[in-house]
Amino acid sequence: MNSYRTDLAVEAFDGQGQSALPGVDVNRWEEGGVTLTEVIVSDDEAAGLLGKPMGRYLTLECGPLRRRDPDARAAMGNLLAEELGRMLPEMDGDVCAMVVGLGNRQITPDALGPAVIERTLVTRHLSDQLSALPGLRSVAAIAPGVMGVTGIETMDAVARLAELVKPVAVICIDSLAARDSARVGATIQLTDTGIQPGAGVGNHRRALTQEAVGAPVIAIGMPTVIHAATLARDAFEWLNRQNGDTPADEAALNDMERSLLSAAGDMIVTPREIDALIQDAAGIIAAALNRALQPDLSDAEIAALMD
Amino acid sequence: MNSYRTDLAVEAFDGQGQSALPGVDVNRWEEGGVTLTEVIVSDDEAAGLLGKPMGRYLTLECGPLRRRDPDARAAMGNLLAEELGRMLPEMDGDVCAMVVGLGNRQITPDALGPAVIERTLVTRHLSDQLSALPGLRSVAAIAPGVMGVTGIETMDAVARLAELVKPVAVICIDSLAARDSARVGATIQLTDTGIQPGAGVGNHRRALTQEAVGAPVIAIGMPTVIHAATLARDAFEWLNRQNGDTPADEAALNDMERSLLSAAGDMIVTPREIDALIQDAAGIIAAALNRALQPDLSDAEIAALMD
Amino acid sequence: MNSYRTDLAVEAFDGQGQSALPGVDVNRWEEGGVTLTEVIVSDDEAAGLLGKPMGRYLTLECGPLRRRDPDARAAMGNLLAEELGRMLPEMDGDVCAMVVGLGNRQITPDALGPAVIERTLVTRHLSDQLSALPGLRSVAAIAPGVMGVTGIETMDAVARLAELVKPVAVICIDSLAARDSARVGATIQLTDTGIQPGAGVGNHRRALTQEAVGAPVIAIGMPTVIHAATLARDAFEWLNRQNGDTPADEAALNDMERSLLSAAGDMIVTPREIDALIQDAAGIIAAALNRALQPDLSDAEIAALMD
Amino acid sequence: MNSYRTDLAVEAFDGQGQSALPGVDVNRWEEGGVTLTEVIVSDDEAAGLLGKPMGRYLTLECGPLRRRDPDARAAMGNLLAEELGRMLPEMDGDVCAMVVGLGNRQITPDALGPAVIERTLVTRHLSDQLSALPGLRSVAAIAPGVMGVTGIETMDAVARLAELVKPVAVICIDSLAARDSARVGATIQLTDTGIQPGAGVGNHRRALTQEAVGAPVIAIGMPTVIHAATLARDAFEWLNRQNGDTPADEAALNDMERSLLSAAGDMIVTPREIDALIQDAAGIIAAALNRALQPDLSDAEIAALMD
Repeated sequence: MNSYRTDLAVEAFDGQGQSALPGVDVNRWEEGGVTLTEVIVSDDEAAGLLGKPMGRYLTLECGPLRRRDPDARAAMGNLLAEELGRMLPEMDGDVCAMVVGLGNRQITPDALGPAVIERTLVTRHLSDQLSALPGLRSVAAIAPGVMGVTGIETMDAVARLAELVKPVAVICIDSLAARDSARVGATIQLTDTGIQPGAGVGNHRRALTQEAVGAPVIAIGMPTVIHAATLARDAFEWLNRQNGDTPADEAALNDMERSLLSAAGDMIVTPREIDALIQDAAGIIAAALNRALQPDLSDAEIAALMD
Repeated sequence: MNSYRTDLAVEAFDGQGQSALPGVDVNRWEEGGVTLTEVIVSDDEAAGLLGKPMGRYLTLECGPLRRRDPDARAAMGNLLAEELGRMLPEMDGDVCAMVVGLGNRQITPDALGPAVIERTLVTRHLSDQLSALPGLRSVAAIAPGVMGVTGIETMDAVARLAELVKPVAVICIDSLAARDSARVGATIQLTDTGIQPGAGVGNHRRALTQEAVGAPVIAIGMPTVIHAATLARDAFEWLNRQNGDTPADEAALNDMERSLLSAAGDMIVTPREIDALIQDAAGIIAAALNRALQPDLSDAEIAALMD
Repeated sequence: MNSYRTDLAVEAFDGQGQSALPGVDVNRWEEGGVTLTEVIVSDDEAAGLLGKPMGRYLTLECGPLRRRDPDARAAMGNLLAEELGRMLPEMDGDVCAMVVGLGNRQITPDALGPAVIERTLVTRHLSDQLSALPGLRSVAAIAPGVMGVTGIETMDAVARLAELVKPVAVICIDSLAARDSARVGATIQLTDTGIQPGAGVGNHRRALTQEAVGAPVIAIGMPTVIHAATLARDAFEWLNRQNGDTPADEAALNDMERSLLSAAGDMIVTPREIDALIQDAAGIIAAALNRALQPDLSDAEIAALMD
Repeated sequence: MNSYRTDLAVEAFDGQGQSALPGVDVNRWEEGGVTLTEVIVSDDEAAGLLGKPMGRYLTLECGPLRRRDPDARAAMGNLLAEELGRMLPEMDGDVCAMVVGLGNRQITPDALGPAVIERTLVTRHLSDQLSALPGLRSVAAIAPGVMGVTGIETMDAVARLAELVKPVAVICIDSLAARDSARVGATIQLTDTGIQPGAGVGNHRRALTQEAVGAPVIAIGMPTVIHAATLARDAFEWLNRQNGDTPADEAALNDMERSLLSAAGDMIVTPREIDALIQDAAGIIAAALNRALQPDLSDAEIAALMD
C-alpha cells in the first residue's frame, strides 16, 4: 500500500506500513471521544515520501460524527475551534482574516468550502460596527470557484484578492479525498502548510502558501470521497494479502482501472447521504471558525450578527 | 460473476456469462447511435436465475450521453418517446395516466424521479382546458417520497393515490444501480413489469404491479450509481481472472466488504458530476414522457402549457 | 378596512376596527418577549364576518424573529412546543400522528410546509425501535404537493393517505399571507379549526377538517407574503385617512389593481431575505413539533434519531 | 411621478411625463413580437434628470416571456444575441472577454447573475483547445458575491480580477428593479455605460466603468422585483390622479412608507413564480451570451463544450 490518492497526512503515513519514519513525528491522543493525530513532517525527504509538504497536520476523528451524533458534533466543533485558535496569529488592531471556500458548489461532494463561506460571520465591511463593538475582528470570505467554471486559476484569483484584502491569515476550507471509507464524513484535518500543487481532488493547481500571499495559510478539510480507483485497488490488495499472494504489479492495476472505470470518466465513492453530510460538516466547521476568529464574542452574539 | 446488485436486466443476463439461457430472449440492435437491447424473461425459472420478474426489459444505451452530447440527448429522447408510446395503452376519452417519481429528492443520485415530476406536464386538474383542447390527455404526477422520510411504505401510498386517480396506466421513474460504470448516466431501462420487492436501490419495498393497482405499471429508470461493494468485488474478480486464479470464495469477499466498507455505512460509486447528470436525465426523460403522453401536441404546445 | 386577504384571525379581527365583536373573544398577553393573542370565534355570524371558521386561533408574535435574533427563536420555539402540546390529544399506545407539509417547494415563499417535513422526526416505519424505545411516539409526515404540480386536489390526496395512516391527529404546516408587513416572518398562528376552503394563499381547495379525516386537524402557519394588491390598497387607504378623505370606492380600488398589477400575474410582497427566513422558520417549527410529538425524548435524543 | 427607484432608463424617461427631453434620444421599434426601445442619454444634464449615466440603453420587452412562452423566449434570445454582438469589440487573436455575474445567489430575485455564470461557456483555461479549435474565443466568468457575504466591495474585487484577466470587454449580468410590474420578468436591458454607484438594487457600490477597468463594460439586466415602497406610492398616486386630487407631498409618502413597511425591513414585490422565472431568464441570457461571444460556433458545438 502506498500514499496513492489521499489528502490526509495520517493516511499517507499509515500507508507506509511502518511504525516510525525519519523526519516524521506522530502523536495520537484522545479528548472527549475524539481521536487527535498530529503528524509533523520536518524534512524534504519525508515530505517526498509521504507526498505531503513539510508542516504540521492535525487530524480530528470521531466515527459517530458520520451518523450525525449531537455529542460528536459538539466535541469536534469545540476541539476544532480550540486548535484553530492556537494556529491563528494575534488579530489585534486593524487587521483582517480572509476565509477561502475552495471547491465547486455545483458538485455536492466538492461543495464544502462554499457551504462554509455561507455560514461565516463576515465583518470587514462593517467598519462602523467594528469600532463600536470593540471585540469584533475583521473577517472577509470568498468562494472563488474552480477553474472549470471561471476559466481562471483558482490560486491566481485568491492571490489577487489577498493583495486587496491584505489579510494577516488566510484560512482555506476544502473537500478532501481519503483512502479509508471510515474516515469520510468523520474526520477533519487542520494544517499550517497552505495548499500545494497536486494536493487534493481539486482543480486549483497553483500553490497558496505563506510565500505566495505574505500571510500564514491554514487549511481545514474534511474527506467527502474516496476515488473509485483507490477503492478498487484496495479491494484487490486486501484480498491478495488474505491469500498470501504477491502484490499485483502496477501494470495489472492500471489495466483493471481502465477496464472497470475509465469508460465512465471520473467516478467517486461517497456516502449515500452526502448532501446532508456536507451541510452538517459546513455547520460544524463554520461554527468553529466563527468562534476562533471572534474570541471576544459569545455564540449568541455571533448568531445575532449573522444574517 | 453473478447478477449481484444490478437493476438492469441486461447486466443480470450478461452476468450469467452465457450467450443464451432458457426462458430468456435477447435482441440487440442500433438506431441513430443508440444501442437497444431487449431482454424478455418468459418463465419463472429464468426470472429466479436473473433476479428479475417476468416481462420485457428494453435498454437504450448511448455512451456520449454521459458527457452531455446534444446529438446523444436528442437520439435517446426520441427513441424513449417512441418506445414508451408503444407500451402505453390507448388514452382516448375520459381516462388519466399517473406518473410516479420514486426516490428521495434530498439525496442527489436518488432524486431522478422527483426531478422528472417537476418537468412533467400535469393536466388532470385542467378540466375546462381538457375539453377545450381536444387533444389534451389527462395526466397526474406524484413524488411520494421514501419511507425513511414519510414513515409510510411508498407503495402503500402510491396504491392509495391510484385508488383516487384511477389511472389507465402508471409510469414510475426511478434511479437505478448498475454493475458496469460505463452504464451510469448513459443508459435508460424501460420495462412493463412494474416495481417489485427487492428490485432497485430504493427504500420502497412492496410491489407496484398491474395486479396491485389495476392498471399496467411501466417503469423507466437510469443507473446513477454502482454499489461500492460491487465495484470492490468486480475489481478483485477482474484481477483474479487476469491471473488465472480461482475465484475468491464468498466468505472472503464478505470479509473484504466488511473491512473496507462497512464501518462507513452505505457507500456508493457515482460520477463526480452527478448533480448535473441528474438534471440532464430528468430533462430527457420528462420530454419523452410528455411527448408520449400527449401525442396530439407539438413540443411548443407542451412547453406553453407548462409553468 | 376589511378582512380582505389575510390568513391571520387577529388581522381579520383588527380589520373590523372595533374593540369588541359579538361571538369573538380576544385575549392578549406576553411571555418572554413574545406577544400571544388568542382569538376564539364561537358562532357562525362572527365566522362569516371575519371570514374565519369557528375555533381557536393563537398567534405568537415576536418582531426580533424577523432579524433572526437567537433569543427570539428560542422563545418562539419553546412557546410553540408548549401550546401545540396542549392542543394535541393523548398519544398513548399504538397510535400515530400525521404531519402534512402543505405548499409548493419550488416557490420559495410557499415552501415552508415541505421544509418542515424535511426536519420532522419520522418514526412510523421504525416498528422495532418503537417497541424498544418505550417513549417513542409514531409519527408520519407527508408533503403532498400542490394541485398545479400533481393534478390532484391536495385535500383529496391527504384524505386518502389519512385513511391509510389512521392518525389520531393531523398537523398541517403552511405558508400564510398577512396584511401587515411587520408580521411577515415574525408571527406564527396555531389553530384547531383545520384547513378550510378559501383560507390561505394556497391552491389546496377542499376542507381538511375533523369531520373529513376523523381526527382533530391542527394548523400551524407563518405569514411569508403580503399580496401586492393588499399593499397597494393599504397604502391608498392609509394616505386617505391622513387626509381625512372619504374612503375610495371598491370600483376605483379594483381599477387601480388592474392597472398597476394585473398585467403581471400574481405579484407578492415578501422580504428580500425570504430564502433564509423560510429555512429559519422551518427549523423553529420543526423543533417545536418534534418536542411536542415526542414529549418523552430530550432534544439530543431527537437529534440522534434524525438522519 | 419621478424616476424614483427604477433601474430601467426607459422608465426613468417615461417617469418625466414628457414626450421629449433635451439630451435624450428615444427610438422604439418592433421585431418578431419584441418591442425594442433605445434611450440615448447624451449630456450631463439629462443624465442628472434621469438618474442614469450618459450612454446607450436598449430595452427588449415581450409580455409573453413572463408566462414562459417558447416563441417569446426564442425571439428575445435571438435579438439579445444580435444586439450584444454589435456592442462587443472584435475578439480576434489572443484576447479574452470576462463575464461578471453580480448579485447574491442566496436571495432568489438577486440570483440572476450567478445563475447566468453557471450556464456560460468558459474557455480561458482550455489553451490547448483554444488553439486546436480556431474559432473558439477565450472567455472567463466570475460570480464575485455581494459585500454582505464577502466583506469586500464587489467592484474592488472585480477590478482586481480584471487586472489578472486583462479582458477586452467586461459583460456584467444583474437583477434589476422596475417601476411597472408588467416589466418584471418580461424585459431585458442592455447598456454600454458600465455599472454606476447608486444604480440598481444591489450592494455593489463602486463604479465599474471603462475608465476603471480599461475595457468597455456592457451590462445586461432583467427586472425581477419592484420595491414595495414604489408600489405603495404608485398606488396612491394612481388613485389620486383618478380623483383629480393634488399629489401627495413627499412627507406624507414617507410617513406612509414608514408606517406600512419599515417595521419589516426591506420588502420587495416579486412574481410568485420568481424561482422558475430566474432559471428561465438565466437560460435565455446565457444562450445569447454564448452565441455572441462564440460567433464561429453553432449552438450544438457550444452545448458539446459545456459541462
